[in-house]
Amino acid sequence: MKFESLRGFRDIYPEDAEPRDRMLSEIKKVARSFGYQIIDFPSVEPLDLYRIKSGEELVSQTFSFTDKGGREVTLIPEATPSVVRMLTSKKDLPKPVRWFSLPKIWRYEEPQSGRLREHVQFNADIFGLDTPEADAEIVGLACTILDSLGLAGNYEIRINHRKLMDEILRALGVVDIPRVFGIIDRFRKIDRQEFMNSLGEAGVSQDSARIIEKLASSRVKADDSAGLIQSLMEMNNDLRESLERVVSTIRMISYYTSSEIVMDFSTVRGLSYYTGLVFEAFDIRGELRAILGGGRYNGLSSLISDQDIPAIGFGMGDVVLELLLKRTNLWHKDISGNRYYVCTVSDDAASFSLKLSIDLRKKGADVIRDMGKRSLSAQLRSASVNGCSYAIILGTKEVSTGSITIRNMSDGRQEAISIEEFLSSIKK
Amino acid sequence: MKFESLRGFRDIYPEDAEPRDRMLSEIKKVARSFGYQIIDFPSVEPLDLYRIKSGEELVSQTFSFTDKGGREVTLIPEATPSVVRMLTSKKDLPKPVRWFSLPKIWRYEEPQSGRLREHVQFNADIFGLDTPEADAEIVGLACTILDSLGLAGNYEIRINHRKLMDEILRALGVVDIPRVFGIIDRFRKIDRQEFMNSLGEAGVSQDSARIIEKLASSRVKADDSAGLIQSLMEMNNDLRESLERVVSTIRMISYYTSSEIVMDFSTVRGLSYYTGLVFEAFDIRGELRAILGGGRYNGLSSLISDQDIPAIGFGMGDVVLELLLKRTNLWHKDISGNRYYVCTVSDDAASFSLKLSIDLRKKGADVIRDMGKRSLSAQLRSASVNGCSYAIILGTKEVSTGSITIRNMSDGRQEAISIEEFLSSIKK
Repeated sequence: MKFESLRGFRDIYPEDAEPRDRMLSEIKKVARSFGYQIIDFPSVEPLDLYRIKSGEELVSQTFSFTDKGGREVTLIPEATPSVVRMLTSKKDLPKPVRWFSLPKIWRYEEPQSGRLREHVQFNADIFGLDTPEADAEIVGLACTILDSLGLAGNYEIRINHRKLMDEILRALGVVDIPRVFGIIDRFRKIDRQEFMNSLGEAGVSQDSARIIEKLASSRVKADDSAGLIQSLMEMNNDLRESLERVVSTIRMISYYTSSEIVMDFSTVRGLSYYTGLVFEAFDIRGELRAILGGGRYNGLSSLISDQDIPAIGFGMGDVVLELLLKRTNLWHKDISGNRYYVCTVSDDAASFSLKLSIDLRKKGADVIRDMGKRSLSAQLRSASVNGCSYAIILGTKEVSTGSITIRNMSDGRQEAISIEEFLSSIKK
Repeated sequence: MKFESLRGFRDIYPEDAEPRDRMLSEIKKVARSFGYQIIDFPSVEPLDLYRIKSGEELVSQTFSFTDKGGREVTLIPEATPSVVRMLTSKKDLPKPVRWFSLPKIWRYEEPQSGRLREHVQFNADIFGLDTPEADAEIVGLACTILDSLGLAGNYEIRINHRKLMDEILRALGVVDIPRVFGIIDRFRKIDRQEFMNSLGEAGVSQDSARIIEKLASSRVKADDSAGLIQSLMEMNNDLRESLERVVSTIRMISYYTSSEIVMDFSTVRGLSYYTGLVFEAFDIRGELRAILGGGRYNGLSSLISDQDIPAIGFGMGDVVLELLLKRTNLWHKDISGNRYYVCTVSDDAASFSLKLSIDLRKKGADVIRDMGKRSLSAQLRSASVNGCSYAIILGTKEVSTGSITIRNMSDGRQEAISIEEFLSSIKK
């Protein structure tokens, strides 16, 4: 009988799993350097937790089912509702709260490049602050993570602000704002004519549609924001406060990274619960799906509890990140230099090699012990395959003299050395 | 609306999630020091993958469901079938293969102490070797992990051998061996009379039942194995080979750890696919469920593929381990010593504190920046709550002099120091 993994799911072998694990460790390290602490939550949650905020479109894409107790449950399609549930269940948490998590999440969607049915998503949020500083810290954390993975200069951050967009659309006489957000969200996926027609169908006047189209297609670099403020305020002076907040946030973000930060009015994010800053990171060549995305969602906690706690966060999946790191040649095994392969070439050396392997590991070395009773050449081949820098060869002679023969795998040179001398030369 | 997590699932807050993450990192480090490499596999698999080896009992305890494509699937109840599927799908893998993984696994069982519906399970396996050395390495890896977590002396390893038990039961005239294994597996959970009655009902003679009862209740320490061999071989000389293999394995395991290793004939493991060595670790006080368990399962690969690859491995859940580490007082946050809290006490110091925080992180420090525009005393309270060893205080004076005020949180002493001097004093 032949078994395969389900479509959209991955078997990850060491050549990818080791770099991925190292990537996730680096991400955790950066998050901790900002004072964020790890949390974890169930992979299975009541389906209602997603109905309340995400609506039926997301629900239709979940791996949901009825469990054996008759409960409607789902594999989590995102982290935010669980995180907010945890936040609001403990009323005495000193604010601000900085949390991160690394759950697997699931979507029942058609698999394609950069989108699988299961992936790991890094999430980070800061709760209890509603300031441009907090907005900038979250985006700054995202940038610092990408930079520390070696991706500086390989991505750009696109920023927008839901409240500002809302005010602009109101100033333009738009009535059905959620619908127009949905159209703007598709701006980069549809052609201009379809975009204009959709706006018209949504009741937007031709003049307003032209301004929206112009806004959505304009990308304003952080440094050019003075001109932006000027021209938008000429449109409507009430926009000043929101505009100044965005501009001040962008200025602070630019302290964190040398990567490009642009004001992009087509970035509105799909989910409906955002209330302020929204942002996404894209690879600079524009070949891949979004690397990460997030925003401010101040209203969510009061939807699932009796508390009202301001919140901003982002999510970043491992799939696009892996594609980008591979393209940038930053995805490789980092074999420890302190890695030994212990070869045993005679039966009477078995205990010797066992003890030596244990002693070496206690010194902090990585040790693979050959247990196959094979020829020395076969054992040395395995030493190479396993990326060991040294092979240690143990036979009758070594047992009788209390020495080892050590072989440098890069140049094949061998030398005999006493066991005490060897062990004391290993740096922990 | 009030949401709670499902029964048997955990919301894990930082006070537990941080120690758990550190525990998992340590486990990974030890596994790598033995040459094991990480893999990952889907959380959702075809249900048939478990039917083939585990039978309906395990299947009835799965979180299984029909997905939107009409497939019968399940959240994985254990790792082994997926791991063996990965192993046999790539025919060119150089053997032996040493792999580990850290998946979440799920069982639809009644939650109780040490058993939840979702937990993380560390798994390690070595494929392609069927030797006492490989048996000893797997148990030795398990022991080295527990020892490196600080648990040396707090657990014992119980060893048995399925083939040996099989031969003993045959020698005792037992016909329905799987059924008797099932009874022996319950030995420690039922009273003696019920045990004897069950054996009788399974067709075991009174004399044989008495010997089985005596065996199941005897615990033989590694050092006393000579006497064991003698007395068992008096029963039947054909047991010699299996016995010698177990004894030699136990002797090798004792190199890895100073913790107690006992031959325990009541340890037979529930799953039906074990063919050789089986083992479990228990806390020395006997208060908790098994810490880990595993064994040799040579026949499994040929059940799900056309390859026949010898295999031995074990699984270790995070729930019992957490209980044991808490009991042993080894479960605590390990806050980095290099952890700063940056307080801003005047608006004109905002950019200064932002830049300093970024610079400090680049030096490898963990930095929490206060962004709340609060009183200094409130900020210092947060510094304490967040376990920071130093607070850095920045106000108008510091901005104008290019200096910082640094406060030692343990004794409250403060000093002013120039920014350059401070930054150059930070060790990366």
